Amino acid sequence: MKFKAIIFGLLFPGILAAETLSSPGGIIDVTFDVNTDGVPVYSVARLSETVIKPSRMGFILKDNTNLTENFELIGSVRDSLDETWQPVWGETAEVRNNYTELLVSLRQKETNRLMNIRFRAYDDGIGFRYEFPDQRQLIYFTLVDERTEFVMTGDHIAWWIPGDYDTQEYSYTESRLSEIRQHMEKSITDNLSQTTFSPTGVQTSLQMKTDDGLYINLHEAALIDYSCMHLNLNDTTMTFTSWLTPDALGDKGSLQTPCRTPWRTVMVSDNACDILASKLILNLNEPCAYDDVSWIKPVKYMGVWWDMITNAKQWSYTWETPSVKLGLTDYSKATPHGKHGATTENVKRYIDFASEHGFDQVLVEGWNIGWEDWHGKMKDYVFDFQTPYPDFDLVGLNDYAKNKGVRLMMHHETSSAVTNYERHMRDAYELMQKYGYNSVKSGYVGNIQPKGEHHYSQWMVNHYLYAVKEAAKYHIMVNAHEAVRPTGLCRTYPNLIGNESARGTEYEAFEGNTPAHTTILPFTRLQGGPMDYTPGIFEMDLSKVNPDSKSHVNSTLAKQLALYVTMYSPLQMAADSPEMYSKYSDAFQFIKEVALDWSDSRYLDAEPGRYIVAARKAKGSDEWFVGCTANEDGHESTLDLSFLDGDKKYEATIYSDADNANYATNPQAYVISKKKVTAKTKLKMKAAPGGGYAISLKPIK
Amino acid sequence: MKFKAIIFGLLFPGILAAETLSSPGGIIDVTFDVNTDGVPVYSVARLSETVIKPSRMGFILKDNTNLTENFELIGSVRDSLDETWQPVWGETAEVRNNYTELLVSLRQKETNRLMNIRFRAYDDGIGFRYEFPDQRQLIYFTLVDERTEFVMTGDHIAWWIPGDYDTQEYSYTESRLSEIRQHMEKSITDNLSQTTFSPTGVQTSLQMKTDDGLYINLHEAALIDYSCMHLNLNDTTMTFTSWLTPDALGDKGSLQTPCRTPWRTVMVSDNACDILASKLILNLNEPCAYDDVSWIKPVKYMGVWWDMITNAKQWSYTWETPSVKLGLTDYSKATPHGKHGATTENVKRYIDFASEHGFDQVLVEGWNIGWEDWHGKMKDYVFDFQTPYPDFDLVGLNDYAKNKGVRLMMHHETSSAVTNYERHMRDAYELMQKYGYNSVKSGYVGNIQPKGEHHYSQWMVNHYLYAVKEAAKYHIMVNAHEAVRPTGLCRTYPNLIGNESARGTEYEAFEGNTPAHTTILPFTRLQGGPMDYTPGIFEMDLSKVNPDSKSHVNSTLAKQLALYVTMYSPLQMAADSPEMYSKYSDAFQFIKEVALDWSDSRYLDAEPGRYIVAARKAKGSDEWFVGCTANEDGHESTLDLSFLDGDKKYEATIYSDADNANYATNPQAYVISKKKVTAKTKLKMKAAPGGGYAISLKPIK
Repeated sequence: MKFKAIIFGLLFPGILAAETLSSPGGIIDVTFDVNTDGVPVYSVARLSETVIKPSRMGFILKDNTNLTENFELIGSVRDSLDETWQPVWGETAEVRNNYTELLVSLRQKETNRLMNIRFRAYDDGIGFRYEFPDQRQLIYFTLVDERTEFVMTGDHIAWWIPGDYDTQEYSYTESRLSEIRQHMEKSITDNLSQTTFSPTGVQTSLQMKTDDGLYINLHEAALIDYSCMHLNLNDTTMTFTSWLTPDALGDKGSLQTPCRTPWRTVMVSDNACDILASKLILNLNEPCAYDDVSWIKPVKYMGVWWDMITNAKQWSYTWETPSVKLGLTDYSKATPHGKHGATTENVKRYIDFASEHGFDQVLVEGWNIGWEDWHGKMKDYVFDFQTPYPDFDLVGLNDYAKNKGVRLMMHHETSSAVTNYERHMRDAYELMQKYGYNSVKSGYVGNIQPKGEHHYSQWMVNHYLYAVKEAAKYHIMVNAHEAVRPTGLCRTYPNLIGNESARGTEYEAFEGNTPAHTTILPFTRLQGGPMDYTPGIFEMDLSKVNPDSKSHVNSTLAKQLALYVTMYSPLQMAADSPEMYSKYSDAFQFIKEVALDWSDSRYLDAEPGRYIVAARKAKGSDEWFVGCTANEDGHESTLDLSFLDGDKKYEATIYSDADNANYATNPQAYVISKKKVTAKTKLKMKAAPGGGYAISLKPIK
Repeated sequence: MKFKAIIFGLLFPGILAAETLSSPGGIIDVTFDVNTDGVPVYSVARLSETVIKPSRMGFILKDNTNLTENFELIGSVRDSLDETWQPVWGETAEVRNNYTELLVSLRQKETNRLMNIRFRAYDDGIGFRYEFPDQRQLIYFTLVDERTEFVMTGDHIAWWIPGDYDTQEYSYTESRLSEIRQHMEKSITDNLSQTTFSPTGVQTSLQMKTDDGLYINLHEAALIDYSCMHLNLNDTTMTFTSWLTPDALGDKGSLQTPCRTPWRTVMVSDNACDILASKLILNLNEPCAYDDVSWIKPVKYMGVWWDMITNAKQWSYTWETPSVKLGLTDYSKATPHGKHGATTENVKRYIDFASEHGFDQVLVEGWNIGWEDWHGKMKDYVFDFQTPYPDFDLVGLNDYAKNKGVRLMMHHETSSAVTNYERHMRDAYELMQKYGYNSVKSGYVGNIQPKGEHHYSQWMVNHYLYAVKEAAKYHIMVNAHEAVRPTGLCRTYPNLIGNESARGTEYEAFEGNTPAHTTILPFTRLQGGPMDYTPGIFEMDLSKVNPDSKSHVNSTLAKQLALYVTMYSPLQMAADSPEMYSKYSDAFQFIKEVALDWSDSRYLDAEPGRYIVAARKAKGSDEWFVGCTANEDGHESTLDLSFLDGDKKYEATIYSDADNANYATNPQAYVISKKKVTAKTKLKMKAAPGGGYAISLKPIK
């Protein structure tokens, strides 16, 4: 560990004392000081190049006494760590956590209130958080807002989505920071629950690139008992300021000392691949909280789902009950509309196929009563999570699945009636335990109840974690959709096996996703944890699934395969139907074979919004898998296989776009070829516009 | 049943059709019509004397389409009932439910929306409710407010408390309706959670008296899945209009058809005793929802409570933890402050005394961790309802009590962190079941969380009933404090054995209650169900309990005894300490003997704000008990014992104020005398200023 002594006073006249923390490899410097007004200020540099200009830190409090100025530095403590830990599941078998640390202690003059700030410097970025010690002069306080600045060095390019208290399901816009304002309105597409707040407000993780070629990423880690942070841009000074999510009273945080905020993170590198490979967010989270993790397993699954998303089938059972009251509505007397997806017969078909092809689970949505009347009504008792429709044989299907070596995956759509969900949660989990379900996909569609709360407010942040921790008591894994975007909590609570929290494949059946979408998500949304992106769609013309549909999936078929590698997740769905996979059984072979858990991951080539090429080695195996996803320009590159074991020969099975493939006009044109390769092989590879490729590499015995 | 045909058109030009419903005995008439604007209008008369002048009915909806006018009457159905039912506990062994009914069906022109109104006429008043049938043209709707009018015939005298969304803990003001505005400000005394809304807003049950000597009472019955109704007065027209309690979004109701509102009630008589004896509110509630009620029993209890109210002891354990975090705060390391009330030793003292004197239960407050830091903080995880303080032996004390034939009464103060309570409710009830607790006093002090909700908003109304219904699954009786005022739900859910929902005896240790207070509560608060008023205070000078106290209990000792009769409740506390009851053991004898459940009740003499004299016959016994409570003027009367069995002789034990007794200056001056009496006896009785008397009447064998 080395400490730099810099003359900070030259930059900030009147400064009393400055502390600089250098990362273990000396690449990143973070400098902290208190200015003449007593305002805490930090800045970040990479190899002496400024990344974050001097930026103020603090809080506006509801009682009109702010924690923004009049501070004095009363002490500092330095520390460092270099450890290696093993995730329960992950991109790599081991994660190195190597940082230097600076804890500065501040006292506010007159009020005597104490506030500490802990910085950790890694070679690929920094994190810092506020810590409030136990003190009589500050016990309870309510935030008007947090005022943490991130002052940019210029008008960077950013890949951003609109700041919103209730949804992240937006397409990314690529623009200069100065252009955010002009693009905001058209970036705000409709959602069933949405609350934007500023013409320059954006969400994290925010990926940027400077004109000097630095990749900068702003996010947060370990979001616990605090509201989700957005960033609001002053597009004159290019300063982002933290903008928290309000509660029903408009307050943005209720804190009780001793306490601490989540980590605010800045990742930075001159190589985009480093951002993708960074473990900074995970490392800033606490170690696993569970002693026994033997029940947590990666999951490859199919599901009764895409048919409903494409409107070919329905979650509901009947058209006859526009006003459902659980416990009063008598489904046994209703005439089925015949479009119900979650019928015993249909689910059996999925179980049969999943079993035959080695899948772990079958998700069934629309199995429980209430879907005739489930969203947009601020209805409280919308689902009971327990009562099946008359045509869904809960007991029989679980037995049937069990006999076939497959489990059903539970589905808990809450309709955002969250207090109702909490009331029923224990019974719902007990029902799952009784029938052998070990994972649940939960959903939070629509406006939140408790009324006035938001998807990302403190109470909801606490709810999501409550649901995960309660589930752990029943050895249940959770995959929460429409929940707050993840911040690495899966390290601490690895039964949080997935989240949605972004625009997933479902939007291909609505307005469509941009071809660039999956070249951005790994830089942004995936920084916090895996996404249940649900790839594997083989039929891009959705009018062939539902004649009324005019939707088109903006991807080639080969790219759909690549996503199993490029979009890291221990939870992977094969989202299309058994029929489609039977029709393209050669391509389906990749989905069957691709691993879910990895001993190593390499990002070979990446540029946000353009392309990502990743290689991963299966855990407990010598097999490697490669994926490439490209935007509408396609991607050509020479794939250097030097990551392979130099002593081995491999058979590569290459699933690539055909020469004439194109996501819009010819998405199903793919070519499968086999080739013997070694670590010395270099493959000329080409992804079509909106295309990609996938490769399996198996050692030859 | 008889129907009156009146020429309504003379009163309301342009009227299409009028319906009049007469009560079974022909005493009350309610007339309904739709006026020329299609506005539903009702009026009420008693023996042809107008009680409610033509008053409009309807709703303002959030979607800007109102349910106030353009209605046409499309049908009406009449019905009647004369039945007798047996309450699980009550003032009488049997209740007669004898009414006529008129259901009018309305259709709104253009919108085609359907709204029905059901009227029931009793000889002592009426009830009506809105009913919305199942219909596609009106499924979900959100109320801006209900607009039900109660147009008074004059400037009546009223006994009122300020309208408030969060508390009913106010002293009553007696004034003309026209004087409410001028008295409002001083009527709004401080409370830990309070939200008033109008200078002429008052709460129900509202007791009034006309200059013609009619007693009129406005209230509601069967408040379920709807927000609590207040009344806002136009003091020019003397028109009360319903004013519902808003939710966190400011909305006043979220309804889904088919549904119905609570009953709006008007009780009326020329005899104040009839108002006290009325069973109209109970009769408008549904029959008992439980098959097995064998576990529901009246309870006479003592408690570790008054010492904390007087600040002689504390709920808390230590002064060292101003910031408690459950699960983190280590009480085993904290130094006790020595003022903790709920110590094993102190509770044993109460158990010993309670056992010796035949009490059922001992309430213990402050037994569980968290009280150092429990209110006013909008803290979420404030209590876990499970973890005792180090000096409270949960297991040992329950065993100790059981061996002495006494049960402990559980205490669940929620601090209004209601979602936290719901998360812990099942575990808390399971803990109770495990140790043999069969009743819980719950509390809702402070502002409600979910944030923005109010004590009387729809979500909270639903919560209180949820807690009662969940408790029933564990055979637990509930006595909820600071909950919404009751509306007769104890008929349907008789394990709701008590409520506070008004200014109770605890205020005697704060600013004091007025001597008139207990002469008004039976007219108002008690209309909806029993109150846990916690009488039985024998030491009125509270400086003798806590030298720092300057409070005085505004009652004579004899009046404290009378309250066990005048304030009907199946749950009765002897709130003072064992020491005090040992000191005045002769007076204490009445508390020991007084029954909790009754086969008959007679109101002998009553005037709101002045005095109440009641006689009750113990269930399963030939004993009678009489009580009288008086305001600061005292009360003299001749007590006619003709309610006694004419064939029997009785020994009367009379606990009365001494001649020189006075609530303010000489409250403990009482005289106990015995006398042989029969049904022909007339006793000259006198209550001192702020005093009263109590009599037990035992048949002589």
